[in-house]
Amino acid sequence: MEKPYVVGIDLGGTNTVFGVVDAKGTILVSDSSMKTQAYPDINDYISTLCNGINAFVEKVGGRDKIRGVGIGAPNGNYFSGCIEFAANLPWRENVPIARMISEKLNLPVALTNDANAAAIGEMTYGAARGMKDFIMITLGTGVGSGIVVGGNLVYGHDGVAGELGHVIIRRTNGRLCGCGRTGCLETYTSATGVARTAREFLENRKDDSLLRQINPDTLTSKDVYIAAIQGDQMAIEIFELTGRILGEAFADFIAFSSPEAIILFGGLANAGDLLLKPIQAAMDKNVLKVFLGKTKLILSQLKESDAAILGASALGWEAKELS
Amino acid sequence: MEKPYVVGIDLGGTNTVFGVVDAKGTILVSDSSMKTQAYPDINDYISTLCNGINAFVEKVGGRDKIRGVGIGAPNGNYFSGCIEFAANLPWRENVPIARMISEKLNLPVALTNDANAAAIGEMTYGAARGMKDFIMITLGTGVGSGIVVGGNLVYGHDGVAGELGHVIIRRTNGRLCGCGRTGCLETYTSATGVARTAREFLENRKDDSLLRQINPDTLTSKDVYIAAIQGDQMAIEIFELTGRILGEAFADFIAFSSPEAIILFGGLANAGDLLLKPIQAAMDKNVLKVFLGKTKLILSQLKESDAAILGASALGWEAKELS
Repeated sequence: MEKPYVVGIDLGGTNTVFGVVDAKGTILVSDSSMKTQAYPDINDYISTLCNGINAFVEKVGGRDKIRGVGIGAPNGNYFSGCIEFAANLPWRENVPIARMISEKLNLPVALTNDANAAAIGEMTYGAARGMKDFIMITLGTGVGSGIVVGGNLVYGHDGVAGELGHVIIRRTNGRLCGCGRTGCLETYTSATGVARTAREFLENRKDDSLLRQINPDTLTSKDVYIAAIQGDQMAIEIFELTGRILGEAFADFIAFSSPEAIILFGGLANAGDLLLKPIQAAMDKNVLKVFLGKTKLILSQLKESDAAILGASALGWEAKELS
Repeated sequence: MEKPYVVGIDLGGTNTVFGVVDAKGTILVSDSSMKTQAYPDINDYISTLCNGINAFVEKVGGRDKIRGVGIGAPNGNYFSGCIEFAANLPWRENVPIARMISEKLNLPVALTNDANAAAIGEMTYGAARGMKDFIMITLGTGVGSGIVVGGNLVYGHDGVAGELGHVIIRRTNGRLCGCGRTGCLETYTSATGVARTAREFLENRKDDSLLRQINPDTLTSKDVYIAAIQGDQMAIEIFELTGRILGEAFADFIAFSSPEAIILFGGLANAGDLLLKPIQAAMDKNVLKVFLGKTKLILSQLKESDAAILGASALGWEAKELS
């Protein structure tokens, strides 16, 4: 009998979510109560996580029912199975997490970064079913990407390709990025980038805005969204600028891999047309003529609360025994 | 018996070169005397070309010896087998050239663009042997690219991916490009881009230079090279600027596909260290830390006079019978 289930682990900077998923993308059991930062010792983290997974595995009929385990984690390297230089996680050194979990669970484990996991999830269960060439862009605290070419994730020669949040979109007077460089796409178009734009607008402009009622230091992209749907002109312009910059970047991405679709995922994507319309306009304006109108701009079809675990679990289908 | 030979056709804006090649990349017979622009009627062009090829095929032992035919051509679409919107060719409409040649020769034919053909040639016979992830950059009249990911050419969903000469490298006050947009990489870093930089420097600067002895209207990148190797400061700075801009662009390409190598090909690549050193410096300065020092910057190992035909012919090994 084929093994009918996979385990998905979404290892985030704040929460770790894990669960058991079937081939149709139904989540049978899941747990989202584990706080990543509560485990400064990686061994404690692995123990707690694997105990939780083992309990679920028993519940669904035992280890013989599990095809494999997929992990999505910041800076997860598909080739090495290690988490490398992940600034937001409590463990400073490289963590050979695929091997550690595989040894504990006695199951094949595959690791990739969170955005790649989202792309695999979208291809397996979501808007990218049947597509062989697409780019997943995750608009969260940062901007991540998972690139699929010819039906395969682009891992590069070292396992960590696809850092489109860090292409340089402004070469002069660009914003300082957490990566140490300036002008990265994510400094403008992540949720934090949108809040940063709002603070700049509030400081540099004189016009009235609902955003002036909010403390600039705690202002978030959600505040900008709420103001924009109430018709606030400044908030609308913040989304227009964000969308324009994304569209400029997407035009360059299209020149690289000519994807069938660019799929948006993550908190900011919920802004819908406020963001999609200026992106589309900037894509059309900036793209090389031969590509004009060919690449669809669409939203993820995965429920945000489920997507992380689904994406990670989808990787489990291709996990191999460690050699 | 395996068929031991392939036919390669390099269809350029000026010359058409074709020949018969064996599995080791030895060119058995070739002809580079055909002038593309001499055939305003595509049917005349196809007739002359196929007559020439048939004569060669007879010479090497007949059609049974030929595995397939590969064509590299500007705007050649791998999926459709058509040349689409090729501004520098005499035929205005889309040309279904793969089918036309296949019917005439009664052999399988595959088409791709010239830069992709160069990448396949490099992977089959040159510096990229054994590599699964690399980017070929052709620095000629324009800037072309062939991208290999996981051992396969990146064609995109429409067959024409990999137009890295047209990523926007200067978003403000960028140079006008032949494509109608401004700031494209090739407006700065093609052979014509280098001549353009020279004219700008001569006009905007006061310092002496060997380049001032040349009529600016006819000045070429080769003049700049000759001046630079004689130690001319302005000429050296022109290559430094060209290299810096290429290095900035390469840093973004690395964030996309994390290639093992970026391979330079074409006339400008002959400038060697004059260009390689500033490219490497700008790559190192601009690349995201996780990729630093991982991607090699190397020159093509194919002789320029042979490369076009070798690249095109390499595609012939995978040509399939048209359905």
